[in-house]
Amino acid sequence: MNKEAEELLAYLEGFLTEGRRNRIQNILQCRTRHVTLVLEDLIDPHNASACLRSAEACGIQDVHIIENRHEFSVKSGVSMGSAHWLSIYRYREQSLRLPSSSASAHHTGLPASNGTQRRPADQSEQTRECFRYLKEKGYTIYATSPHQSSIALPDVSLDGPVAIVFGSEKDGISPVARELADHCLRIPMYGFTESFNISVSAAIAVYDLTSRLRKSDKDWKLSESEKSDLRLAWARHSLKRSDLLERQFWQNNKNEKSSQPNETSAFRPEKA
Amino acid sequence: MNKEAEELLAYLEGFLTEGRRNRIQNILQCRTRHVTLVLEDLIDPHNASACLRSAEACGIQDVHIIENRHEFSVKSGVSMGSAHWLSIYRYREQSLRLPSSSASAHHTGLPASNGTQRRPADQSEQTRECFRYLKEKGYTIYATSPHQSSIALPDVSLDGPVAIVFGSEKDGISPVARELADHCLRIPMYGFTESFNISVSAAIAVYDLTSRLRKSDKDWKLSESEKSDLRLAWARHSLKRSDLLERQFWQNNKNEKSSQPNETSAFRPEKA
Repeated sequence: MNKEAEELLAYLEGFLTEGRRNRIQNILQCRTRHVTLVLEDLIDPHNASACLRSAEACGIQDVHIIENRHEFSVKSGVSMGSAHWLSIYRYREQSLRLPSSSASAHHTGLPASNGTQRRPADQSEQTRECFRYLKEKGYTIYATSPHQSSIALPDVSLDGPVAIVFGSEKDGISPVARELADHCLRIPMYGFTESFNISVSAAIAVYDLTSRLRKSDKDWKLSESEKSDLRLAWARHSLKRSDLLERQFWQNNKNEKSSQPNETSAFRPEKA
Repeated sequence: MNKEAEELLAYLEGFLTEGRRNRIQNILQCRTRHVTLVLEDLIDPHNASACLRSAEACGIQDVHIIENRHEFSVKSGVSMGSAHWLSIYRYREQSLRLPSSSASAHHTGLPASNGTQRRPADQSEQTRECFRYLKEKGYTIYATSPHQSSIALPDVSLDGPVAIVFGSEKDGISPVARELADHCLRIPMYGFTESFNISVSAAIAVYDLTSRLRKSDKDWKLSESEKSDLRLAWARHSLKRSDLLERQFWQNNKNEKSSQPNETSAFRPEKA
């Protein structure tokens, strides 16, 4: 975060209550990118929304959304606004990837369908793109699949960062996701029921992994720089019409610069 | 299980494939009543169904359903038939409680509204009835509530049997449930989102408790007698028209008795 962004953060945080500032600080202490959630072609907005809500409540910051065949959409009544606090990476035609530092750009909500035609040639292009990105970042990718040869959830190693992929309600993860993932992952089950609902699977997985992470001695917390970026994004989202405040800030900043005093001048414009 | 029931069980199991018999045996080895799920006045059939599915998949046998204000109903597409393998105890006006040994009586599905008028005098009567039953059976009752003074899920003791209660989507657990429960229980949360979806909460709780139980040295398995009762219920449910087979069994049994040979007779009716 550069000096100007730091000043903007201080300016915006000046409008937050002490309670809200403390809350943001406390949540940042618990936030992690060591575990991330990947949703591939989820169909039902209820499921998608419940997954975001569970991830956010468990302290996961990043959710990756792959849209090869289905546009992702959320139900605000189910997500409870959780998407606003997450860094959501979308992979779709004319890929719109929002890096975490500009997470606030996303916080106006998930865009609706952009009406673009899907290229029929490769329906897994976005999966490849997402996995490439995760591997670059050092993630070990686990694609959920009920096969007995899969690694059971309690046996997932948390030594390095972990991405868990959930596929569509209808077909599960795509063949490409299964092929490119490092491992398959299954949640142990002991009854006649052979699968959990997808939002339930995702919740159990993120709860289990983040619980184990918090008890471990791994370095799972965000860096100071990541925390500052999120403080700015979250301050923006916490304020009504933060855009107006921000415009005001830049205006003040510009005025300040244009009337930069020389050493002999006693004049300084006051900050709003 | 008396001798006749044992014979009936052997008779019915004779019609099952070896694969199904083994499956039933394996599932019975993992089944528990040490943890039980209580659902109080759930409104949404999706949530209710997802809760049954999660409980069954985690190896929980008993689910208690309290209907003070709302009839319980399931969505078969969500429950995936899980209700058929559970012992479901319903508490409602003209209370219908199905003991586990007659679980099969319930396995025709959950009855629809019986059209009875609710007595407005005490809207928590069924909660009291359920809690009385659980306490008689030695359960420690945890009512889920997000209050900070609650016991966190990982701190729930599994020394004795544990019942966890989830309340309606709208109001949470009733004041009476909170008052009569031994403790309040919360699932730790680390984000801005202040609650999980109810089916997600229930899944996390049953997954966490049953996982810990399986790793523990507690005596959490069913008794041999309980297993036999369930084998009979599950054999009935596994067979198409088990009622006809059963009628045949009793007919054979009656014939056998009425034509009981004396020691000098060589005649014995053949079994079907």
